[in-house]
Amino acid sequence: MMAKTVRTQRVNATRELILATAERMFAERGVHEVSNRQISEAAGQGNNTAVGYHFGTKTDLVRAIARKHSEQIEERRKELVAAAEGSTDVRDWIVCLVRPATDHMGSLGVPSWLARFNAQLMNDPSLREVVIEESLTSPMMRKILDGLSECLADLPLEVRLERGDMARSVIVQMCAEYERAVAEGTPTARATWHDMATGLIDGLVGLWTAPVTR
Amino acid sequence: MMAKTVRTQRVNATRELILATAERMFAERGVHEVSNRQISEAAGQGNNTAVGYHFGTKTDLVRAIARKHSEQIEERRKELVAAAEGSTDVRDWIVCLVRPATDHMGSLGVPSWLARFNAQLMNDPSLREVVIEESLTSPMMRKILDGLSECLADLPLEVRLERGDMARSVIVQMCAEYERAVAEGTPTARATWHDMATGLIDGLVGLWTAPVTR
Repeated sequence: MMAKTVRTQRVNATRELILATAERMFAERGVHEVSNRQISEAAGQGNNTAVGYHFGTKTDLVRAIARKHSEQIEERRKELVAAAEGSTDVRDWIVCLVRPATDHMGSLGVPSWLARFNAQLMNDPSLREVVIEESLTSPMMRKILDGLSECLADLPLEVRLERGDMARSVIVQMCAEYERAVAEGTPTARATWHDMATGLIDGLVGLWTAPVTR
Repeated sequence: MMAKTVRTQRVNATRELILATAERMFAERGVHEVSNRQISEAAGQGNNTAVGYHFGTKTDLVRAIARKHSEQIEERRKELVAAAEGSTDVRDWIVCLVRPATDHMGSLGVPSWLARFNAQLMNDPSLREVVIEESLTSPMMRKILDGLSECLADLPLEVRLERGDMARSVIVQMCAEYERAVAEGTPTARATWHDMATGLIDGLVGLWTAPVTR
């Protein structure tokens, strides 16, 4: 029993190490440019197939990294959704969409890699779908998207989807640039992730509520 | 003299072929993942140093690709700036910012690579700066940014810059996704580059004119 616990702890530590290493390498170099073998090596695994053994395919590994963060993000969503419940002010729902991720990113310390990891996924249509699916299965995310849709019921469906794509792209890209600036010590106009998110939320409220040319 | 003309034509054809090959390869795989040697080979050059011989470094090559398109884009800017001259409606200047590029992309046929080439550059801070510098030296682009700034004079400078970053990111990303969808035959909500740009312009007007939280 004792031996089994120690072994489980060791396996968990290895898995954590592989996840952290892969997140950093994907963020720095892109998901397609890094092989499972290179990740195994960089994580100091004697066995070059360690990633495959612990996680499976690269898609499985990407999903595992996304999941590692999603629990904490979902907790924060819960709080904000409780505060927004019943609101018909689109800003309240955009806050629910942005702050859980930016609060979490701010909590990761410097340097963090999550925002740049997410941005790299955007370049790959199939992996992007994996992560979007992953977040759409979150019960809180469903509530947020429903709340948002209700506030935007006057928009034609295709415009709502189009602006959803624009918003997602801008959130992912701005977070990645902010994370990179902080990591590299480049001066930023916004002192904190919280203030950076405020600027993002302001802009997205405008983007989503703008008049539509027919 | 005759021989010299033929040689010049052959050199120009080689340069054009290298530019088109590099644009496609950068768009598909990322600027950092493709070497000058690979481009020379893919362009069917017996000499693996052809890229270096004709263009110099990779940064020089990226700049040459950007320049190849910039003349036509600048022509279209001229027309739209003439129409916007003196306007204090932010939309007129956003039209000047978006349509010259999207009109040009629409003129390239299917598949085109320019939008995805631009999106790949966004991932690399140093190459991104090269292309931004390149477009900032365009006299029409200066006029457009001045016109835009005048319409947005009430925004604090740092918010204006922040929204400029958001807008650039969304333009680049949405064009790349539209280009990919068209190239792969995926259904799109917008039937043409012109209509796609209209949706983009609508959203950007909202983004840039949104109220600012202090």
